[in-house]
Amino acid sequence: MFSPLIEELIRALRCLPSVGPKSAQRMAMYLLEKDPEAASLLAHSLAQAVERVGRCQQCRTLTEEAICSLCDNRRREQDSLCVVETPADVLAIEQAGNYHGRYFVLHGHLSPIDGVGPADLGMDLLEQRLATESLRELIVATNPTVEGEATAQYIAERARVQGVAVSRIAHGVPIGGELEYIDGGTLAHALNSRTAFFPGS
Amino acid sequence: MFSPLIEELIRALRCLPSVGPKSAQRMAMYLLEKDPEAASLLAHSLAQAVERVGRCQQCRTLTEEAICSLCDNRRREQDSLCVVETPADVLAIEQAGNYHGRYFVLHGHLSPIDGVGPADLGMDLLEQRLATESLRELIVATNPTVEGEATAQYIAERARVQGVAVSRIAHGVPIGGELEYIDGGTLAHALNSRTAFFPGS
Ligand SMILES: [Zn+2]
Ligand SMILES: [Zn+2]
Repeated sequence: MFSPLIEELIRALRCLPSVGPKSAQRMAMYLLEKDPEAASLLAHSLAQAVERVGRCQQCRTLTEEAICSLCDNRRREQDSLCVVETPADVLAIEQAGNYHGRYFVLHGHLSPIDGVGPADLGMDLLEQRLATESLRELIVATNPTVEGEATAQYIAERARVQGVAVSRIAHGVPIGGELEYIDGGTLAHALNSRTAFFPGS
Repeated sequence: MFSPLIEELIRALRCLPSVGPKSAQRMAMYLLEKDPEAASLLAHSLAQAVERVGRCQQCRTLTEEAICSLCDNRRREQDSLCVVETPADVLAIEQAGNYHGRYFVLHGHLSPIDGVGPADLGMDLLEQRLATESLRELIVATNPTVEGEATAQYIAERARVQGVAVSRIAHGVPIGGELEYIDGGTLAHALNSRTAFFPGS
């Protein structure tokens, strides 16, 4: 129905997460009809980002700089390192607001089925940091999935070998969550991981 | 939080219709992290489309060709012309499947407040077609809004002056719609526009 270039644009827009055929078509029409300047800007920005954004040499998060602004920030606690699966997880933890150390981004989790091993997750770089930096604590904040747990286990072992204290973020019922709406797995974990009300006694 | 190029990409993605800050961020992460090839393709396709897509010389729909495929199709009924507000409306009518004539795209509606007059909607081109083509019927399919109706009225007058039969698509309760969920304006219109069950009698 549309001309080849427009059809191609609609197809290309469908690569965006949660954009179906209808939204892709609406987006294409909007960009070409209402806001070609914004469309040009988006095309340019996208091309630039794909070309120039790589990984921080220290924490592997996405950045066009050699060292990202978080690693470069001397005011961050230098002796605490938090391992996460994705750059979006860094943002989530930053927004939570109570962590002031540095990060290490795996870009995934161990997944032998998909051929993702330690080397793909930058484990050599992480081990090097564990060996050379004087870290007080390594916090493992991978996702509470089967693969995330296996990855956490692997990292915890490596940290222990290097003599670095290692912790795992807590999992359980979300604050403000109602028990009746929480899935059984989470609830079972929350029960198993219960903590004493009066730890001293 | 993110590096400048990534922040810029997130901002650029927000120009897309119904994409808020959260989705823009998710899209940027997805494109850079999971599918940079698709991102490159999208950047290229967008740049190409913005540069090369213009308007069909005959019907004003969006196309990179001088004459669009619908205008160029000799099997379409040549004596029937349907006026719509946007290229997406052409698609909607084509998908309905029972119209086989040609189109004319206004790219908007008359709106004195926004400074949109007849010249902006290609009225001179439309009048020229009314004067030179032997049209059997002009169908006005602008939206049933205040501006759409005013635009329809304007076009109908021009067609009458040129001696071309002009019609307006019907408005009323959608097929399969339930009366109790239809807005009052539509229902009032449907009542006013009622047609005789037995027109002959
Ligand atoms: Zn970094
Ligand atoms: Zn055309």
